[in-house]
Amino acid sequence: MRKSVQQIALDAMGGDLGTVELVAGAVEAVRQYEVHMVLCGDENRIHAALQQLGVQESDALQIIHAPQVISMDETPFDAVRKKKDSSIVRAFHLLKEQKVDAVVSAGNSGATMAAAVRYLGRLPTVSRPGIAGIYPTLKDPLVMMDVGANVDCRPQHLLQFGAMAAAFSEVVMLKERPRVGLLSIGEEGGKGNTLVKKTHDLFRQSSLNYVGNVEGRDIFKGDVDVIVCDGFVGNVCLKVSEGLAEAILHMLRDEISQSLKAKIGYALAEGAFKNFKKRVDYAEYGGAPLLGLNGTGIICHGRSNAKAIRNAVRVAKELVANKVNDRIETLLSAVAPSGRDTENTIAPEMI
Amino acid sequence: MRKSVQQIALDAMGGDLGTVELVAGAVEAVRQYEVHMVLCGDENRIHAALQQLGVQESDALQIIHAPQVISMDETPFDAVRKKKDSSIVRAFHLLKEQKVDAVVSAGNSGATMAAAVRYLGRLPTVSRPGIAGIYPTLKDPLVMMDVGANVDCRPQHLLQFGAMAAAFSEVVMLKERPRVGLLSIGEEGGKGNTLVKKTHDLFRQSSLNYVGNVEGRDIFKGDVDVIVCDGFVGNVCLKVSEGLAEAILHMLRDEISQSLKAKIGYALAEGAFKNFKKRVDYAEYGGAPLLGLNGTGIICHGRSNAKAIRNAVRVAKELVANKVNDRIETLLSAVAPSGRDTENTIAPEMI
Repeated sequence: MRKSVQQIALDAMGGDLGTVELVAGAVEAVRQYEVHMVLCGDENRIHAALQQLGVQESDALQIIHAPQVISMDETPFDAVRKKKDSSIVRAFHLLKEQKVDAVVSAGNSGATMAAAVRYLGRLPTVSRPGIAGIYPTLKDPLVMMDVGANVDCRPQHLLQFGAMAAAFSEVVMLKERPRVGLLSIGEEGGKGNTLVKKTHDLFRQSSLNYVGNVEGRDIFKGDVDVIVCDGFVGNVCLKVSEGLAEAILHMLRDEISQSLKAKIGYALAEGAFKNFKKRVDYAEYGGAPLLGLNGTGIICHGRSNAKAIRNAVRVAKELVANKVNDRIETLLSAVAPSGRDTENTIAPEMI
Repeated sequence: MRKSVQQIALDAMGGDLGTVELVAGAVEAVRQYEVHMVLCGDENRIHAALQQLGVQESDALQIIHAPQVISMDETPFDAVRKKKDSSIVRAFHLLKEQKVDAVVSAGNSGATMAAAVRYLGRLPTVSRPGIAGIYPTLKDPLVMMDVGANVDCRPQHLLQFGAMAAAFSEVVMLKERPRVGLLSIGEEGGKGNTLVKKTHDLFRQSSLNYVGNVEGRDIFKGDVDVIVCDGFVGNVCLKVSEGLAEAILHMLRDEISQSLKAKIGYALAEGAFKNFKKRVDYAEYGGAPLLGLNGTGIICHGRSNAKAIRNAVRVAKELVANKVNDRIETLLSAVAPSGRDTENTIAPEMI
């Protein structure tokens, strides 16, 4: 029997900052969100992390020993098939057996997706599960999908991404009738590549609140709630944004360090810079949810700190509590009443 | 007979800031770069602009009357076919007749490309002419191609973009053996969509200085000189970058305006901010060159100010003086000795 308190499994071995940072996020989540965490990984390291944090193992913080580690450079499908005792595989196995309600992982993204697909399977109406990315904007954060799981897509896949991301937006961002835009290179429907032009027509005929094409420069304005693109374009966008934000801050620091006056000025303006950083900090939004699967998983950035893990757990809890998958099924049945196309096998490319 | 001083035609009607700003750029270019400018557009408006700037019409600043205007929302090919007396068409007509050496336009980008293709035609070895975008990085600026002309590409087209952009990098950025990277979603050759994987193999076999896949987050590091992608992805990247840079500055201003201390700090650090802005200012790099055509054209941003126009003229002059098209032919013959594929007609999608 599943307990009434949600159980969230954490891959405690993934991520660049180490097990202590990940476990610290789990501890914060237990304190703030009334969830129980199941920490999957090498039990010695997890014990050591708990000890370092001054926390005891308990019902709220259980350990599942998983001695194998899937490193960042392993081939996702092979690694998942071979390493049954890896922290990622054990976490999804627990979810499959309904011993936990969701999985959060900051490990190898491809392996996380592969394990999720293997152990959870797709929702009945979904052709291609995908990864949703959350972007800060000048207004509310928006959801972009797909950001890396499916690099060669057909129009029907993009339509489904729109419906899945809209369900996420409803359930987590609390948007009613989320505004869905299609990423293209011009606002008019006739602009874009072949895939986008065909997808535009599908969206126009759908029951979603489709607002038409949006351009790259519109992402950060926050005038739409959902942006749809294929996983190649979405992943490039995500990484370009990350790289540019870093480069801009780097250049600013560089310039400021060159004059004493500017340094004093920066010291005075520091609060403003901190608030600004908070606004664009990926950690505020936790991680990228996997959508379209028969279960809930969140992929976190490799560099996730405790705050990011904590927030990812919060999002996972909300997705489960608010039954995002039921909502996905409802929206998908409305946009694609003929059901999913069956000619696809799932062979997602990984981030 | 062409004169020894280079003649550059300017579409004096395009752009968001009006004729005076564009003509001011032409006047600056004449003063700084020993070029002559041929100003195409409504002669009354150009006369008025020259008068406002306190400058006389002369050999160095000629006017060609072109009463028609192609607006930003017209369909490129139709507009170019119908409006023979538009400033864009007249400018490229002058280039075709070898009365000028290059064209600079801040008008409708699609119409500029369409007029260029129509009046200049492709270089013999080129399958698809394209638009190169210039990105500021933490080191030297780099060239990305294509950024909007060709949205559905084959591997051979991307290989050619790499060779054309490398020629540009040699001639304008003075790079020897420019490092060419292929934009993908992982550094390993096996990552990417079908197009990118096939293109990766072509590049590996080529004589270019190919360094492999690069990711979106690497663009701004400046570790490559050329980044290759299809025109859809390239255009999305360009606009995402533009939108994010604006959003970041907007959010910073927003935060700073909320406290007096931060405002004083900003005032002290203002020099640093100005230097920073200069580093990321598109106007420093003029515009986006059209490559692969039998002639030289530069597409400037709609919001180009006088400085951007002046710099675009400088780049145009360097491209002509250093015979970029000869270099493109040489590099292309080396990478694709079998010549261009002939099954394509040119039907570029426009920005």
